[in-house]
Amino acid sequence: MIVAGATGFAGALAAHLLWRHPRFELTGVTGRSEVGRRLDDLYPRYRVPLEIEELDLDGFGALDAAVVSYPHAAAAPTVGALRARGARVVDLSADFRLADLSTYERWYGAHPRPELLSETAYGLTELHRAEIASANIVANPGCYPTASVLALAPLARAGLLADVVIDAKQGISGAGRTFDDTTHLSIAGENILPYNVAAHRHTPEIEEQLGLLGANLKVQFQAHLVPLDQGELASCYVTPTRTVAPAELSELYTGEYAHEPFVEVVDVPPGTRDVLATNFCRVFAAADPHTGKVIVLSAIDNLWKGTSSQAIQNLNLMFSFPETEGLL
Amino acid sequence: MIVAGATGFAGALAAHLLWRHPRFELTGVTGRSEVGRRLDDLYPRYRVPLEIEELDLDGFGALDAAVVSYPHAAAAPTVGALRARGARVVDLSADFRLADLSTYERWYGAHPRPELLSETAYGLTELHRAEIASANIVANPGCYPTASVLALAPLARAGLLADVVIDAKQGISGAGRTFDDTTHLSIAGENILPYNVAAHRHTPEIEEQLGLLGANLKVQFQAHLVPLDQGELASCYVTPTRTVAPAELSELYTGEYAHEPFVEVVDVPPGTRDVLATNFCRVFAAADPHTGKVIVLSAIDNLWKGTSSQAIQNLNLMFSFPETEGLL
Amino acid sequence: MIVAGATGFAGALAAHLLWRHPRFELTGVTGRSEVGRRLDDLYPRYRVPLEIEELDLDGFGALDAAVVSYPHAAAAPTVGALRARGARVVDLSADFRLADLSTYERWYGAHPRPELLSETAYGLTELHRAEIASANIVANPGCYPTASVLALAPLARAGLLADVVIDAKQGISGAGRTFDDTTHLSIAGENILPYNVAAHRHTPEIEEQLGLLGANLKVQFQAHLVPLDQGELASCYVTPTRTVAPAELSELYTGEYAHEPFVEVVDVPPGTRDVLATNFCRVFAAADPHTGKVIVLSAIDNLWKGTSSQAIQNLNLMFSFPETEGLL
Amino acid sequence: MIVAGATGFAGALAAHLLWRHPRFELTGVTGRSEVGRRLDDLYPRYRVPLEIEELDLDGFGALDAAVVSYPHAAAAPTVGALRARGARVVDLSADFRLADLSTYERWYGAHPRPELLSETAYGLTELHRAEIASANIVANPGCYPTASVLALAPLARAGLLADVVIDAKQGISGAGRTFDDTTHLSIAGENILPYNVAAHRHTPEIEEQLGLLGANLKVQFQAHLVPLDQGELASCYVTPTRTVAPAELSELYTGEYAHEPFVEVVDVPPGTRDVLATNFCRVFAAADPHTGKVIVLSAIDNLWKGTSSQAIQNLNLMFSFPETEGLL
Repeated sequence: MIVAGATGFAGALAAHLLWRHPRFELTGVTGRSEVGRRLDDLYPRYRVPLEIEELDLDGFGALDAAVVSYPHAAAAPTVGALRARGARVVDLSADFRLADLSTYERWYGAHPRPELLSETAYGLTELHRAEIASANIVANPGCYPTASVLALAPLARAGLLADVVIDAKQGISGAGRTFDDTTHLSIAGENILPYNVAAHRHTPEIEEQLGLLGANLKVQFQAHLVPLDQGELASCYVTPTRTVAPAELSELYTGEYAHEPFVEVVDVPPGTRDVLATNFCRVFAAADPHTGKVIVLSAIDNLWKGTSSQAIQNLNLMFSFPETEGLL
Repeated sequence: MIVAGATGFAGALAAHLLWRHPRFELTGVTGRSEVGRRLDDLYPRYRVPLEIEELDLDGFGALDAAVVSYPHAAAAPTVGALRARGARVVDLSADFRLADLSTYERWYGAHPRPELLSETAYGLTELHRAEIASANIVANPGCYPTASVLALAPLARAGLLADVVIDAKQGISGAGRTFDDTTHLSIAGENILPYNVAAHRHTPEIEEQLGLLGANLKVQFQAHLVPLDQGELASCYVTPTRTVAPAELSELYTGEYAHEPFVEVVDVPPGTRDVLATNFCRVFAAADPHTGKVIVLSAIDNLWKGTSSQAIQNLNLMFSFPETEGLL
Repeated sequence: MIVAGATGFAGALAAHLLWRHPRFELTGVTGRSEVGRRLDDLYPRYRVPLEIEELDLDGFGALDAAVVSYPHAAAAPTVGALRARGARVVDLSADFRLADLSTYERWYGAHPRPELLSETAYGLTELHRAEIASANIVANPGCYPTASVLALAPLARAGLLADVVIDAKQGISGAGRTFDDTTHLSIAGENILPYNVAAHRHTPEIEEQLGLLGANLKVQFQAHLVPLDQGELASCYVTPTRTVAPAELSELYTGEYAHEPFVEVVDVPPGTRDVLATNFCRVFAAADPHTGKVIVLSAIDNLWKGTSSQAIQNLNLMFSFPETEGLL
Repeated sequence: MIVAGATGFAGALAAHLLWRHPRFELTGVTGRSEVGRRLDDLYPRYRVPLEIEELDLDGFGALDAAVVSYPHAAAAPTVGALRARGARVVDLSADFRLADLSTYERWYGAHPRPELLSETAYGLTELHRAEIASANIVANPGCYPTASVLALAPLARAGLLADVVIDAKQGISGAGRTFDDTTHLSIAGENILPYNVAAHRHTPEIEEQLGLLGANLKVQFQAHLVPLDQGELASCYVTPTRTVAPAELSELYTGEYAHEPFVEVVDVPPGTRDVLATNFCRVFAAADPHTGKVIVLSAIDNLWKGTSSQAIQNLNLMFSFPETEGLL
C-alpha cells in the first residue's frame, strides 16, 4: 500500500491512518515536492517515519492498493498507471467522481482517462457499499458532497425534495496546504468568508448523487470558510414536495441510518467538535412549522469522513476487512 | 448621557464609543453587578475611567439621553423611568423592536410597557432616519435583523421576494458576557454550532421590517456560532418572484445604498474581517444562473453595526449631529 | 474501574481513554453535578455511553481501580474511601503530590488524609516506574511539573542546575470546565495572559522532584494562558553550574530518554501541535553560546500527558499491562 | 507623505493610520508587488482608497516625509534616496536600529548606507524624544525591543540588572504577510511554537539600548509564536544586583512612566487584549520573595506600538504635532 501525494493534508492523514491500521501495511509515501524529507518531519504529529519519495511506479514492485491524493487532472494518469500495475486505488481527486462525462468536462475540461470510469465506484460508503467492495477504483467524494448527500439522502429517496439550499461552512484545512490569503491566520482568523458564489464545482456531484436516489433537481450550494482547523457543517434548507410531520421525518432518518456505524442521527443540533478527528457524520433533521421547510444539519470532519478516513473506510470494504477497522 | 447596563459587551462598547465621542458627554455607567468596580478594570481595552454604579435615576439629575442595555423585559421599565425624567433613550433590548404587540407577546410574554411603543422608532438607521431623528425611544435592532434586512431591503422594495432562506453565522461575542458551554474557548473553539433550530426570536423582527417594505412572507432563519470574537455574516438565498438579471440586481443595490455612509455595496464576497470594529455593513448580491436564485451576502460586526455603534449612529441623528460623528 | 469526577475535562478524557482501552473495563462515571445525564451528551466527542451517577461507594461493589478527578482537598477523602474498598487509585488532584507534608500545608492548608501519603507514589511515569507499579495510590503530577521536570531531569541528575527560570504557556483547557473571564472565547481569545505572578502552587512540586534528583534550588516559575484549547510549552532557562558543550547536552538528553516510549528528544524546537491529543512529551535542549545558558523546551498536551493519558500510562504500570496500551 | 512598502502588514497599517490622521496627508502608497491594485482591495478593513504604485521617487515631487516598510537591507538604499529628495523618514526595518556598525554587520552583513547612521535617531519614543524630534531618519524599533526595553528601562537606569531572561510571545501577524507553515491557520492554529532558539537578531538591539541606560549585560531572549493575530507579551525575569523591595519597584516604574501618554503601569498582570489595536504599552512589575527575582510583564500590540503606530507617534514628534495626535 502506498499513498501517492502524501505531502498535502489529505494524503498525510491517509498515510497516518494507514500506518497505524492493523491490517494494511504502508510501504511508501510519495510527493511531488519535499522529496527526501521524512513525513514525520513535515507532519510531526502523524508520526509516520517514512521518507517522501518521488513516485516511481516501477520501483514499487507488486502493489495491491494505493491512495492517490493529487490535484484534479493530475490524478487520473497516475490512477491509470497504478491500475496498469494491478493496484486497486482510492482516488481523492474529483477526476472520477462524476459518472457523467459531459458534466465532468463542463467543469474540469477534457477527461485524462475516461475509459477508467467504467471500473469506478463512487465512494460515499453508506450509499454505494456493494459497488465499492468490488471496484478497482473508488472515487472518494468531496467533503461537501459527503456532508450534503448524507444529509439529504433520506429525503431524496422518499421523493420529498422540491427545492434545496445548502449553506456549508468549513475550517481552513479545507483549503489544503496552500499558502495564501485564505489560509494566513492573520487574514483567515477572526473572519467568516463566503467563496465561489454562484459557481461551485461541488454542485454537479451533489446533484448527480441525489439524482441516483430519485431526486432530479438543481441545488443551491454555497461554501464559507470559518476560522478553525478541521470541521464542516452543511446546513440544508429543504422545501418539501408535501408537508412532512416530525414523526415521519424522524422515522426517515433513523430508518436510513440505524445500522450505520459512522452516521449518528441526533436530536440536538450537531457541532463539528462532536465529530472532530473521527469518521462520524452527525445528522439532525427538523421540520419548521413556521415555514413548512425541513432543516437538516450535517456535521463531519472535512479531513476525516470528508476525505481521508472515508478513504480508509472504503479500503476496508475493498479488502473485506471490517468496515470500522482502524477507525474507532 | 448614561449607559445603563454597561457591564455586558454591548453596554461596555456603547460606553467606550460615547466616552471618546466628540459631542456626547458620558456621565455615568450603571450595572446590576460589578457595582463599585471601574469599567476600565472590567474592560481594560475600552479605557472608560468611570465607576460602575447602581442605577439610581434620581441621582442622575437632568438627563438628556441614555443607552439601555438590559435583558429583554427588564429593559422596558427602565426605559419608562428614564423617559419619565425626560431622557431620550436608545434601547438595545428586544422590548420595543416589534411594532405589533401581539407578535411581541407571542415570543416574549406580556409587554411591560406597551404604551411606550407609540413614541418609539425602529433603529435600523438606513431605513428609518426620519422617525429616529424625532423619536423619544429608539429600539435598536438585533444584529441578525440588521444584517438581514439591509441585505434584503432592495429586493423587498422591488417586490422580488418570493421565498427567503437566511443562514446567519456569528462570533461568540453574540452570546454576550455569559459563561457557559457556548462561550468556553475549549468548547466553542474549533466548533461550528447551529442553535435555536426552527425557533428563532429574530424571525418576526425581520418579517415585520420586510413587510413594511412591501414583502409579506415567512422567512426561514437559522443562526450558527463560529469560533471568532466579533463578526456576523448573513447569507440570504432568495427565490425571486421573477428572473432578475445581474445588471438589474446591481442597480437595485447601488441605487439603494449609493449615498449611505455605512453601507458598502461590493463586487466580491465580503468577509466579516472587512468590517471588524466598524459601523460598516458590506453587501454583495449575485444572481445564480444555475438555479435562478439570488444570493445576498451581508457582513457586519455584530457588536458594532449590529448593536452598539448603530446606537451611536442613531443618537447622532436624534441630537442632530453628523451621522458619522465619532464612528469613523 | 470507575472515574470519579468525570464531568470535568480531565475526568471526561480519562473516561474516554478507559472506555476504549483494550484491557480496562470502565463500569461507572460519577459527578457532583450533571447526575443522570449521559457522559456522551455532555462530551459528545468522547462517545462514552454511560450515565453520570452520584458517587455511591457501596453501590460499586468490588472495585479494583479508580481514577479520581476532584478539586484539591475534596479528593483525599474520596481516595481514602476508595482505598478502604480495596481499589487502587490514580488521583488527579494535588492532594498527594507533595511528599513533604509541611510543604502541602503551606500551600493548601491542613491535609485531609495524611496517613495515605505512605502508600502513594508520584506519578511522573518516566521517573518513578518502580514505585508506581506497586503503589496503591498514584498522585498524578500537575501538567506544569510534568513538562518542567521532564525538561530538567537530565540536567538535575548531572548536577548542572544553578538557576532555573521556567516560563510556561498553556491552552485554555488548563483552566478546566470553569466558566469565567479566563475561559470566555471573547475574552481569552486574541489574548496572552500571565497569571499567578510570583505565587504559583506548582513551584513546590517542581522543586521537590528536582530535589529528589539532587538539585536543591528555588525555581522561578511563571504561567501564561494562550488562546488555544489543548497544549502546553515549558520554556526553561538554565544557568548551569559550569559550561555545557552542545555534544554533552545532546548526550545527556538522548541518554536519559533513548528508551522512553513517550519522550521524544528532538533537534528542532517543538510545537505543542506536534503532541496534540497524544501522551508524548517532546524535549529540545540547546546551549546558548551568547549567554552560556541552557535552554530546554518541553511540549505536551496538558490534558493528555499533562493529566489524563499519563493517568492511563500509570494504570498500565500498576496492573502490569504494556505501558503504551491504549495510548498509541 | 508616502508609505513605501504598503503591501505588508506594517506598511498597510501605517497607511491606514496616516490616511485618517488629522494633520498628515497621505499622498501615495507604493509596493514591490500588487502594483495597480487598490490598497483597500488588498486590505479592505483599512479603507485607504489609493492605488499601489511602483516607487518612483521622481514622480512624487517634493516630499516632506515618508514611512519605509521594506525588508532589511532593501530599506537603506530607499531611505537614502528619499533623504536625497529632502524627505524625513521613519524606517521600519532593522537597517538603522543599531548605532554600532560592527554589531549590524555581524548580524546582517555589510551595511548599504552606513553614512546615514549619523542623522538617525532610535525611535523608541519614550526614551529618545529629543533626538527623534530633530532627526532626519528615525529607526523604528523592532516590536520585541519595544516591549522589552520599556519593561526593563527603569531597572537598567537604576543599575539593578544583573541577569535578564526575556521570554516573548507574539501573535502570527509578527510573521508578516508571508505565506508558509508558520502562518497557515491549520498549522499555526492550536500551536505554541518557539523559534530562533539561541540565535535571535533582536538581542543586540535590546542590549544596545539597555547599555545606553547604563546596563551592560548579555540578555537571554527567546521568541514564541502563539495562535492569535495581533499581540505581544514580553515576560522578563530579572536577577537584580541587590534585593528590591516592592515599594521601591513600584516607585521606579511609576516614576519613569507617570507622565507617559502611552505607557500604563498597572497592578494586575496585563493581557495583550488590553492593548489590542492601540499604541499603549502596559507594564507590570513584581518582586518574587521566593527567588529574589523581579518579574516584569510588558504587553503591546506588535503591529501598533510594536511597529506602525509608534511610527506615527514618532512622526508627530518630528513634525511638532501633539504626540498623541491620530492615535487615541
